Amino acid sequence: VILCVCPSPAIDVTYRVDRLVPGATVRVNRVDSHPGGKGVNVARVLHALGEEVLVVAPSGGEPGEELRRGLVAVGVPARLISDSTTTRRTVTVVDERGDATCLVEPSSTTAWAELVAAVEGSLGGARVVVVSGSLPGGVPPGGVAALVGAARSRGVPVVVDTHGPALLEALEAGADVVTPNVDELAAVVRDDDPTRAARQLAQLHGSVVVVSRGPDGVTVVTPAAAWEARPGAAVTGNPTGAGDALVAGLARGLARDPGVFAHPEHVLRDAVALSVAAVQAETAGSADPKHHAGAMPGVVVTALGGAG
Amino acid sequence: VILCVCPSPAIDVTYRVDRLVPGATVRVNRVDSHPGGKGVNVARVLHALGEEVLVVAPSGGEPGEELRRGLVAVGVPARLISDSTTTRRTVTVVDERGDATCLVEPSSTTAWAELVAAVEGSLGGARVVVVSGSLPGGVPPGGVAALVGAARSRGVPVVVDTHGPALLEALEAGADVVTPNVDELAAVVRDDDPTRAARQLAQLHGSVVVVSRGPDGVTVVTPAAAWEARPGAAVTGNPTGAGDALVAGLARGLARDPGVFAHPEHVLRDAVALSVAAVQAETAGSADPKHHAGAMPGVVVTALGGAG
Repeated sequence: VILCVCPSPAIDVTYRVDRLVPGATVRVNRVDSHPGGKGVNVARVLHALGEEVLVVAPSGGEPGEELRRGLVAVGVPARLISDSTTTRRTVTVVDERGDATCLVEPSSTTAWAELVAAVEGSLGGARVVVVSGSLPGGVPPGGVAALVGAARSRGVPVVVDTHGPALLEALEAGADVVTPNVDELAAVVRDDDPTRAARQLAQLHGSVVVVSRGPDGVTVVTPAAAWEARPGAAVTGNPTGAGDALVAGLARGLARDPGVFAHPEHVLRDAVALSVAAVQAETAGSADPKHHAGAMPGVVVTALGGAG
Repeated sequence: VILCVCPSPAIDVTYRVDRLVPGATVRVNRVDSHPGGKGVNVARVLHALGEEVLVVAPSGGEPGEELRRGLVAVGVPARLISDSTTTRRTVTVVDERGDATCLVEPSSTTAWAELVAAVEGSLGGARVVVVSGSLPGGVPPGGVAALVGAARSRGVPVVVDTHGPALLEALEAGADVVTPNVDELAAVVRDDDPTRAARQLAQLHGSVVVVSRGPDGVTVVTPAAAWEARPGAAVTGNPTGAGDALVAGLARGLARDPGVFAHPEHVLRDAVALSVAAVQAETAGSADPKHHAGAMPGVVVTALGGAG
C-alpha cells in the first residue's frame, strides 16, 4: 500500500461561466465537484495506475461528508479522521475562453494528533508514505516531523511535497524525497541557482530533492549525483495536478525499489510522462494511460556533471 | 402562520478576499454561509419580527442537509421536500473595497408535485402564502398556477415575487399581490411607464401590483387606486434582501388584514421601512428592529391621481 497523507483535503468545485466580471452577478452554467487536495490527487493517479493506495486525511462538516462519498464513488480507499473544523472548498471559475480563476478557502484542523496516530496505525504493509499539500492551520510545531519520523522508524520511505517551514521540517526529520518547485525552493534556500540550491539541501539532509520546473520538467539532485528530465514536446492543457502526477510517479518508483534513486532514469521518465498526461487530462487527479504511454519515449533524461 | 414557499432555496456563501483578480489564484480570508433563497429570506425577516412562519422548499444533497441544519440553527420552522437534485449554492465574493461579485449556480427540481402537495397540506391555519424566488428548472407548465390556485381555493391570500412567465402565470391564477421590480415589469408588459404598466396588470387580473424601484421606494397599484411610498433618506448598505424585506412587510400586513390594500398607507410605510432596515443589515434575510423603527416616520406615502 502507498499511504497518501493529505493534510488539507478539499472539495474542488468547478464553475463554468460565460465571463467572470468582478462586481457583477454571474450565472453559473455548469457545476462540477470532486474530492481534491494534493494528497488526494496523488492517490487518484496511483489508483488509476492500479496501485494499492490509502488516503489518510482529516474531514469535517458537510464538505467532509462529500469528501468521503466522493472517494467511495471513485473507489479510492480512505481513512478519514473526524475533524471539528469543516473541510475546505476551492472554487475554480472557468470562463468560455478557458481562463481559470481559483478561489481557495483557508484550511485548518483540530485533529492533527489523531491524523498522526492514524498514519502510524496504517504503516503495517505500507511501502511508501506520501505527505502532500499545504499544512492546515492548527498543526503544532513538529507536526510534520512526527509524521516523517513515524514512517522512518518503521523503515518506510517518505516523499514530502509541501513548502515553507514544513518543507524544512520534513528535511530535518529525514524525508527521503522532497519535491519543491523553483519558487518553493528559492523560498527556503538563499541561492538563485535551483540546481545549486537543491544540492545544498540534498547534501545537508541526505535527501533526494526533485525540483519541478513546470513545462521544463525536473531537476533531480541526490547526495551523490544530479539529473535533468524534460518532456519531449511542449503540451497544452491544465497544469493543475501535474505536480501531483509527478509525485505519484516518484512514489510508485520508490514502492517498487527503495533504492531507485541510485539509477533514477526510468522512474524520472515515468514520472515526467505522468505529469505530461495530467496536463492533458481534464481534471486534476487523473492521467490517461494512453497519454502516459505516449509521452514516455519522448522524455529526455540527462545526467548532470559536477555533482557532489 | 405565514407560509413562505421557496422554489429555489440556496446556501448563500460569502467569501472575503483582498482582491478578485480574474485568472489568478485568490486566497479566501473568511468564509460565511447561511440558508438563502428569496422565500427563505422573507421567512427569516418575518421570524425576526415575531411572526409565525413555515418555510416550504425542496432540498437535496449535502447543501440540502446544510439548509435544514441552518434553518434549525436560526429557529425558522421548515417543511423541506426531499429532492433528487442538489440544492444550489451562491458564492458572493466581497473584496476589501466592499465590491461584491455573485456567482449563482443553476437550480432545478424533480419534486415540484410533492412541493405543491406539501403546501396544500400546510394551508390549514395559514393566513398568507408567499411564493418568492425564481422557478427552478423542472417545474411543469401550470406549476405556479397550481400553488396559487391551492391557496385561493382555501381563501388564503397569496403574494408572489417572481418574474417572467411565472409572474404572468401567477397573475392569471389570481395572485392577490405581485411584486415585480421595474425591469421585471417591463419584461412582461410593453409599456415604458411603470405606473401605466402596473395599472394594466392590476385591472386585467384584479391584483395588487407593487413595483419596487430600489432606493426610490415602491409604486403600488390596485384595480381601484395607486400610491407611491418613498424612504425618507437615501441609505447606503447592501441592497441584497431589501426586496425580500419589502415582501415580508406586505405579507405581514395581509396576514393582519386581508383587506389592507383598500387603505395601504400603514402597510406601505411598514414594508418600505423594513426594506431600508434590510439595506442597513449585514446579511440578506435580516432587518434590525431599531433600523426599522427609525425608518418608519421618514417614509412618505402619496396617493397618485388618475387611478382606475
